[in-house]
Amino acid sequence: MAITAQFLADQLSLPLKGQGDTLIDHVALLGEASQGALSFVGDNKYLKLLPDSQASVVLLKPEHAELCPCTAILSPNPYAAYAVAARLLYPVAKPPEGIHPSAVLGQDTTIHPSVSIQAQVVIGDQVTIGRGCCIGAGSIIESGVTIGEDTRLAPRVTLKAGVSLGHRCVLHSGVVVGSDGFGFTNDHGRWLAIPQVGSVCIGNDVDIGANTTIDRGAIENTVIEDGVKLDNLIQIGHNVRIGEHTVIAACSGVAGSAQIGKHCMIGGSVGIVGHLRIADHAVITGQTFVAHNIDKPGSYSSGVPMQETAGWRRNYARFRQLDDIAKRLKKIERKLKE
Amino acid sequence: MAITAQFLADQLSLPLKGQGDTLIDHVALLGEASQGALSFVGDNKYLKLLPDSQASVVLLKPEHAELCPCTAILSPNPYAAYAVAARLLYPVAKPPEGIHPSAVLGQDTTIHPSVSIQAQVVIGDQVTIGRGCCIGAGSIIESGVTIGEDTRLAPRVTLKAGVSLGHRCVLHSGVVVGSDGFGFTNDHGRWLAIPQVGSVCIGNDVDIGANTTIDRGAIENTVIEDGVKLDNLIQIGHNVRIGEHTVIAACSGVAGSAQIGKHCMIGGSVGIVGHLRIADHAVITGQTFVAHNIDKPGSYSSGVPMQETAGWRRNYARFRQLDDIAKRLKKIERKLKE
Amino acid sequence: MAITAQFLADQLSLPLKGQGDTLIDHVALLGEASQGALSFVGDNKYLKLLPDSQASVVLLKPEHAELCPCTAILSPNPYAAYAVAARLLYPVAKPPEGIHPSAVLGQDTTIHPSVSIQAQVVIGDQVTIGRGCCIGAGSIIESGVTIGEDTRLAPRVTLKAGVSLGHRCVLHSGVVVGSDGFGFTNDHGRWLAIPQVGSVCIGNDVDIGANTTIDRGAIENTVIEDGVKLDNLIQIGHNVRIGEHTVIAACSGVAGSAQIGKHCMIGGSVGIVGHLRIADHAVITGQTFVAHNIDKPGSYSSGVPMQETAGWRRNYARFRQLDDIAKRLKKIERKLKE
Repeated sequence: MAITAQFLADQLSLPLKGQGDTLIDHVALLGEASQGALSFVGDNKYLKLLPDSQASVVLLKPEHAELCPCTAILSPNPYAAYAVAARLLYPVAKPPEGIHPSAVLGQDTTIHPSVSIQAQVVIGDQVTIGRGCCIGAGSIIESGVTIGEDTRLAPRVTLKAGVSLGHRCVLHSGVVVGSDGFGFTNDHGRWLAIPQVGSVCIGNDVDIGANTTIDRGAIENTVIEDGVKLDNLIQIGHNVRIGEHTVIAACSGVAGSAQIGKHCMIGGSVGIVGHLRIADHAVITGQTFVAHNIDKPGSYSSGVPMQETAGWRRNYARFRQLDDIAKRLKKIERKLKE
Repeated sequence: MAITAQFLADQLSLPLKGQGDTLIDHVALLGEASQGALSFVGDNKYLKLLPDSQASVVLLKPEHAELCPCTAILSPNPYAAYAVAARLLYPVAKPPEGIHPSAVLGQDTTIHPSVSIQAQVVIGDQVTIGRGCCIGAGSIIESGVTIGEDTRLAPRVTLKAGVSLGHRCVLHSGVVVGSDGFGFTNDHGRWLAIPQVGSVCIGNDVDIGANTTIDRGAIENTVIEDGVKLDNLIQIGHNVRIGEHTVIAACSGVAGSAQIGKHCMIGGSVGIVGHLRIADHAVITGQTFVAHNIDKPGSYSSGVPMQETAGWRRNYARFRQLDDIAKRLKKIERKLKE
Repeated sequence: MAITAQFLADQLSLPLKGQGDTLIDHVALLGEASQGALSFVGDNKYLKLLPDSQASVVLLKPEHAELCPCTAILSPNPYAAYAVAARLLYPVAKPPEGIHPSAVLGQDTTIHPSVSIQAQVVIGDQVTIGRGCCIGAGSIIESGVTIGEDTRLAPRVTLKAGVSLGHRCVLHSGVVVGSDGFGFTNDHGRWLAIPQVGSVCIGNDVDIGANTTIDRGAIENTVIEDGVKLDNLIQIGHNVRIGEHTVIAACSGVAGSAQIGKHCMIGGSVGIVGHLRIADHAVITGQTFVAHNIDKPGSYSSGVPMQETAGWRRNYARFRQLDDIAKRLKKIERKLKE
């Protein structure tokens, strides 16, 4: 698929500088680009690659237009413009409408005729699927699930009974939504399961990464608000609420009933203890252990960066004496005062 | 489904105080309850919500009966009573008995006629499945697997060859039991796989959360004893043994040949090094790194709670000097002694 | 399957000491062995078990031959010899060649007649699968995938569009290769997806553990080189490159564009920040947080080993004062100097 620079600029409603009839048919990084490539300057540190780039068209800020050796399309946010441009050059493959003969459907389903249901899918009773959805091969959708419009399930997604998804969501392979929350109570040394009778309610424009799990609520629902983006291998416990437009990186876990605000940015391998509240706009860096509430926006950390193992061992041996060290220091201070 | 308070009290063998004919048809939290709701006081801190609760029936301790504005059912362990009551109000959906026509079965299987085998299931040769089991859609059960009675596999569970499961287990979607353990030996710079010829033996009443993986043993079996509860996204390495009634929260990993005792409580994102032994009744808090044996019951930790990033950076910079700090302190102490 | 010690020694091209006609039909640990067992001394610490072992044949180093109470096969690397021997005694089950009738195939596929495609598999258009491969039940292979020879997919593996795998790879159940990388850009408070138009290129002899996820590249490919071994529940972000013969243990996460060298050994629950470079032959111990480049071989750590919770709390309370402690110490040193 080849388009002209002018066509792209028009689609993006952005000004063009240079040859409008330049053809582009793929995307590339500035330093790797060749003829036909669309590239972008997403960060000023890449400006140094611009003079030698072989890209045919570059998306960049108006103030850098003079530095561009080729046709330029000017945007105050070139990376966002690139996101739209790349989607134009690489449209999402439109799967065939209709239901593959190997799929198994329950009763009383309401499935829009534009929906694509791929091979080996299993759909329960009373399931509703809106216009333009695609249900990837081998996905299992249990009874009572409702899915909005233009939502895409990759192959092998599982939606448990009664879960609801909004519009334009993307769920990647291996995702499990609505599995039982981890609720048990001890009765004379044995663990008794608490029936998990809530559900999971997922808003619009939510992306969920491969093999991520979101548990159903114990009594009330687990809630993922609009625009939330979850990476791969994340665990969301029962009755968690994640506010609008919050992003969480891979391998993180959120324990039950934690309430995460809007527009938060949470790094990879973060652990969030149950029943906490995290303020809107909080930033939590990688491998942090969130063991108490975050009451105001800001950046929070506890990931311990590595050292060479020998030095590390000496330091953490001292760490075990830290309370003692602090007391001895205080004693000396007192002595010196006298 | 509506039941009377008296019927519930009889089922639980617990005393009732108030109107026995009060109808209940759902469960709710004390503060969210409306007419028809069954609620409970699982912790004394919720007693303050009791006077204003709109619940129709509340499960609570006998000593709090006087505080209850509605019909009460009295139990020394109200949360355990709630677990049983909620199961009565929300019975596990009974799937249809028999084998879905899209399922594929091997030879010489022994499957009780009461078993429900759902759509797109694949079952190998010489598989035995006991009375009352349910095999969820899209699950794969390889040859030689044996499953006890009343065990439920959610959709998309994988049981590899020769694995055995006991009675009344619950395996959630995406679980993989019996995959090869991570065993390699280095031979002139290349890694040679050690054949993993052991299996996995899982007891009765074991729950395994979504996308959790349990590896088969290298030579002997990996063993999960009765009553163990594993949350989502947990990794259990080869030849691990987990003692009866131990619980492990999400995102934790147990490396090969670790031996975990009975009645342990292990938090989320905990890492347990291989070949360790952990005593019965140990409690390990979230994000702890268990790098040596735990010889006696008690609570163990190493999760580092977060701070604001700026303060955190100053502190961990000092952490790298900690051995030096300790030595300088000692020097001063010596000096002052002189 | 029973073989003689001499047959095994011949297969391994290793010298035998003792009775060449001794029969072996299974493997066992030295301390658990009985008649017919092949065992090995993989580490000198197990030599003490040798005199009482009931094994029929033991693989061990030539210098320990005198200590062996039974037939011995002598190797400078007994554990590597064991790996080969165990594979002889327990050959990988050869699945039936051909395509199961329940599988669904796309158009223009090139599948060698020796390939085994098991039940409920779904294969897209233009897929190429080489000689001797096995595609496990319920696996989904999207369009344009290419797979080399003798590669085995366990049940329920997902390969997304265009991914390529080399020869002799093993992918365990629940693996997802080629899911979208986690790339979003913020546009006025909303997250805009960056189309992930790269692919994943996996070399020869790569093993990937259960439920591990490997994301496709944003523009260029994600690359896993020959001989890499990945354990279960690992996340590999987009555009990561992992060098030859590197191993990574379970529950670790590698963020986008990190470049990991050859022959590295990375422990469990390790977090590696994006865009870093890690030198060849680096060793990273469990639960380490790799937040900056590793420029030279060596061992690196930051996993904080546990203590009893009470002592731990006292120490980490002091940790929050560490910068202050260091400053006070300096002040005292200055004072004493005066």
